[in-house]
Amino acid sequence: MSTELFTEEGSAQVVAASFAAAPPRLREVMTSLVGHLHAFVKDVGLTSAEWEAAIAFLTATGQRCDDVRQEFILLSDVLGVSMLVETINHPAVGGATESTVTGPFHVVTSPPRGLGDTIAADVRGEPCLVTGRVTGAGGEPVPGAGIDVWQASPDGFYDVQQPGIQPEGNLRGLFTADASGRFHFITVVPGYYPIPDDGPVGELLRTSGRHPYRPAHVHLEVSAAGYRTVTTHVFVAGSPYLDSDAVFGVKESLVRDFAVTDDPALAARCGLANPFRRVEVEIVLVPERPASATGIPPSGGRTG
Amino acid sequence: MSTELFTEEGSAQVVAASFAAAPPRLREVMTSLVGHLHAFVKDVGLTSAEWEAAIAFLTATGQRCDDVRQEFILLSDVLGVSMLVETINHPAVGGATESTVTGPFHVVTSPPRGLGDTIAADVRGEPCLVTGRVTGAGGEPVPGAGIDVWQASPDGFYDVQQPGIQPEGNLRGLFTADASGRFHFITVVPGYYPIPDDGPVGELLRTSGRHPYRPAHVHLEVSAAGYRTVTTHVFVAGSPYLDSDAVFGVKESLVRDFAVTDDPALAARCGLANPFRRVEVEIVLVPERPASATGIPPSGGRTG
Repeated sequence: MSTELFTEEGSAQVVAASFAAAPPRLREVMTSLVGHLHAFVKDVGLTSAEWEAAIAFLTATGQRCDDVRQEFILLSDVLGVSMLVETINHPAVGGATESTVTGPFHVVTSPPRGLGDTIAADVRGEPCLVTGRVTGAGGEPVPGAGIDVWQASPDGFYDVQQPGIQPEGNLRGLFTADASGRFHFITVVPGYYPIPDDGPVGELLRTSGRHPYRPAHVHLEVSAAGYRTVTTHVFVAGSPYLDSDAVFGVKESLVRDFAVTDDPALAARCGLANPFRRVEVEIVLVPERPASATGIPPSGGRTG
Repeated sequence: MSTELFTEEGSAQVVAASFAAAPPRLREVMTSLVGHLHAFVKDVGLTSAEWEAAIAFLTATGQRCDDVRQEFILLSDVLGVSMLVETINHPAVGGATESTVTGPFHVVTSPPRGLGDTIAADVRGEPCLVTGRVTGAGGEPVPGAGIDVWQASPDGFYDVQQPGIQPEGNLRGLFTADASGRFHFITVVPGYYPIPDDGPVGELLRTSGRHPYRPAHVHLEVSAAGYRTVTTHVFVAGSPYLDSDAVFGVKESLVRDFAVTDDPALAARCGLANPFRRVEVEIVLVPERPASATGIPPSGGRTG
């Protein structure tokens, strides 16, 4: 390996050339990364003191990570990178339900539950009936689709954030759609909440005059054989911070009315006090990406 | 704070807008950073698996840092960012000696020494006489200039890397130029060495087919009242890796011949065995940046 000597003008080219022997994809990624990184430094005329502050910030961000805290994902989230990667890798094609960020709280396996069950144990809040249907893009039902659901409490905490207060698996559930693709369950209306902001990323937000809040939402991951899995949210219409989600996760198509519903008969059938809140969730799945789109045959497929 | 909803096309603008209330310089830096970061993700079509690998790499890099190891500076070094920041902030103007990276080993204060002293204790290697002069751009001597020197041993280790083997302060010295700006000292010819490569950055280099070596060099930091301090190296001509420094620190103007010298009289005067190696180092300083270049008055200055 031999490179041209470093010059300010040719800095990115000189460094990129040092990756000439890297595997092709790594070389491609590092060449682009180095180009943009050097262009950034030159565009802003980064000072030595700012470079030192950046080194200290990145170091503190890495050192804030442990088994239950991922500060670099938070950083990626608040810079919109997580949302961008999600959007690029899961484009909403053919009328499919739009995706959004998975977030850091899908860390435990949701307990399997039966249709109509409640996912909310020992949680005070506004009872809510969620009804939904999983279909293909042509409107055909997707029987047996798996619907993985997780959400924060009305106070804005996930079970894993409140061990000893919320039971394990609270406000989580793994449901299986019926023969017509339908599902329903009982929960409570989730609250908005701050992302963890007692670390370097929280300090960046405060220094930047940004708040750490996410609008109220229910997470859904819906999968079925032959279809592309979608990871998405249902946002609660009218929630604070819908127009300024700290992690940029809101898409207009994902906001739903959690309507106050006065229906004593339905309430009785579901075991709810009347009136109650109700939201209807339609999920549209598209077929797995064909081989031609990725160059990789789909699972089980052979190209010859 | 209210932002437009996220779209793939407008992703950088939406995220940049969230920094609208940040202090002006932070806003400028974050806007450029977000623009380049999002452009990078889009240019390479970063996959979800690659994003996860990047999060894991950055986390491991932060967690490899401690009191005597700074893995994020190493990462900045091997991506040429340290060298770029140094070059941007210390342009070689008016014939000044060119600068290069400080590196991670200037961590202890060099012991003050007298002109002609040796900086090499208990180190086997090729004895070397360093003679030099500090002048201004017009050739006028800079009496009393401070010359801070540090270097690796012939085996390629700094004192701080070999506690108990090298004495503290070995191969380091703080000299004061005489009335004609001249200085001289005795040392041994340094060896080339690898940057610490047992962490995530070393793994990146190996995966990329890059070696971790730096060509042999002596560090110099030269300062004098009224002049801009220069942090630079003298590279040993003929050293391996001069054309592929792992941190891109080599500039043509900084390479010097460490000539084998047969001069019994000079050897005797300096207390050296004959023959010996000898290098001559001219350092050219330029005046401190005037107020007009930075908008900030120089130390002690008032603008009214």
